[in-house]
Amino acid sequence: MKLVTFNDGRVGHLDGEAVVELDVPSMRDFFEQEGRAEETGRRFPLAEVTLQAPIVPKKFFHTAGNFTDHHDELTAVDWSHPVHKGIVFFQNVDAIIGPDQPIVYPEGLTKELDYELELAIVIGKSGKFFGPEEAEDYIAGYTVFNDITARDIQRREMQSGVFSFSKAIDTFCPIGPWIITKDEVPDPHTLAMELRVNGERRQTGNTQQMIISIPHLVAYHSAQGYTAGDIITTGTISGVAAVQPNPFDFYLQPGDRIEAEIEGIGTLRNHVISWKDAHDTEPFSSDLYGPAN
Amino acid sequence: MKLVTFNDGRVGHLDGEAVVELDVPSMRDFFEQEGRAEETGRRFPLAEVTLQAPIVPKKFFHTAGNFTDHHDELTAVDWSHPVHKGIVFFQNVDAIIGPDQPIVYPEGLTKELDYELELAIVIGKSGKFFGPEEAEDYIAGYTVFNDITARDIQRREMQSGVFSFSKAIDTFCPIGPWIITKDEVPDPHTLAMELRVNGERRQTGNTQQMIISIPHLVAYHSAQGYTAGDIITTGTISGVAAVQPNPFDFYLQPGDRIEAEIEGIGTLRNHVISWKDAHDTEPFSSDLYGPAN
Repeated sequence: MKLVTFNDGRVGHLDGEAVVELDVPSMRDFFEQEGRAEETGRRFPLAEVTLQAPIVPKKFFHTAGNFTDHHDELTAVDWSHPVHKGIVFFQNVDAIIGPDQPIVYPEGLTKELDYELELAIVIGKSGKFFGPEEAEDYIAGYTVFNDITARDIQRREMQSGVFSFSKAIDTFCPIGPWIITKDEVPDPHTLAMELRVNGERRQTGNTQQMIISIPHLVAYHSAQGYTAGDIITTGTISGVAAVQPNPFDFYLQPGDRIEAEIEGIGTLRNHVISWKDAHDTEPFSSDLYGPAN
Repeated sequence: MKLVTFNDGRVGHLDGEAVVELDVPSMRDFFEQEGRAEETGRRFPLAEVTLQAPIVPKKFFHTAGNFTDHHDELTAVDWSHPVHKGIVFFQNVDAIIGPDQPIVYPEGLTKELDYELELAIVIGKSGKFFGPEEAEDYIAGYTVFNDITARDIQRREMQSGVFSFSKAIDTFCPIGPWIITKDEVPDPHTLAMELRVNGERRQTGNTQQMIISIPHLVAYHSAQGYTAGDIITTGTISGVAAVQPNPFDFYLQPGDRIEAEIEGIGTLRNHVISWKDAHDTEPFSSDLYGPAN
């Protein structure tokens, strides 16, 4: 089942090219009531609704360095710290946007806007402190995440042993286009991944390259507790702009169109717009660091 | 005004030794409706209610390294990375506990449980992208935060350029005992801070030692967007266990009672209990790293 949030926040599931509305106030409520919701009887053509981010979770666990090839490419350019297993931090849930929504380029803060394709796990029920053998019970489904990152800010943050702001700026967290329930994903560890910018292939990989498997990741983070609807990302693959010999030819620019695709899950499309097109003001900057340079 | 959440989640304000109940479903709703709420007419003696965490915000911004003396003590023992201005990450909102609630020692994960006293800012309205001169409008009040940290896990995380899990384990986020509205805090940059363990003074400092002032901190993080009720911490002062010559004489143990006090804000009291007393099972551990050692 493909679960969607649409228009002004209604919840539904897809039936071919139609959206079947469900009688539940939000996708988080849908999972909190264990995926039980009646249909309202209303159906809409998919082409006539506006899809929103499928869910705004209570918590968004962000996994780092879980693909060998991405880790190797970062090490090769002396970019990254050593990456230990299970590195995680929290994403900004107020930065979430949905499919076809614009990523706003914050030109006053960064000049190095990058992409990172990731598979995201949706947790179906609340719980904590369990092992990998129980993890399957907690997984409800999957969606696609494009981890938009300001690399110049990230480099500065990582010198202090932390990174978060660089990935947490307004609109930096596109997810979607839907949540696909796990019954339709026979093996989440064999899915081809590809990210394209303006139709040009940038990242390719496969979920089989994950260092920590999904059940182990879900179990490990359970010490932090789950609320139904929480999201856990699984790390990106090789091909980000930052590691190219000429990264500035690859960093995102206003006008760019990104397709983030995972086999059997879906394709998440977003485009980049300038600060001026979004806000019609001078770009926000901060006197803590001054303008990006 | 001292705002409290009590019993099964009711909201009220203190009137001397009484709690005056407000007609609003939660403290987040209180701020979302701009602090306007009628009294229900019910009053309870403070001594007869159970205070809960005053709020569970949508986002909990965690500031690192914002006090010179704490930064100096970490550098002195070669513990920390260089700390840049404005370092921030997100705290786990599901780890929040209230006054007098127990911190559960996760003995299967850590052997180095530490404390960190911090002043926390409560944001009163939603907004983003504003400067320090507007920040005052967004501040609703203050509370006390005790940043419980597993230092062995933090050291491992920081090698990878991130830390989060070490501060995000279940029960690691005590806040309270109340939110004091800013009209009762004439100058938040002149408040004495003191943390005691079993009555013994461990951390002392003053909010005047902050490197980044509160308006600049609130403005800087506004690029990540605020929802009414969000919390921003301001960093801890010197005296944490990890930097003592004999840290294992100072790390928290089951049975310890902690008082985290900020002048004019309040005193947040919590105690540490063993895993067995909390869960009556073997301590949770993870095969990603094996048991703590």
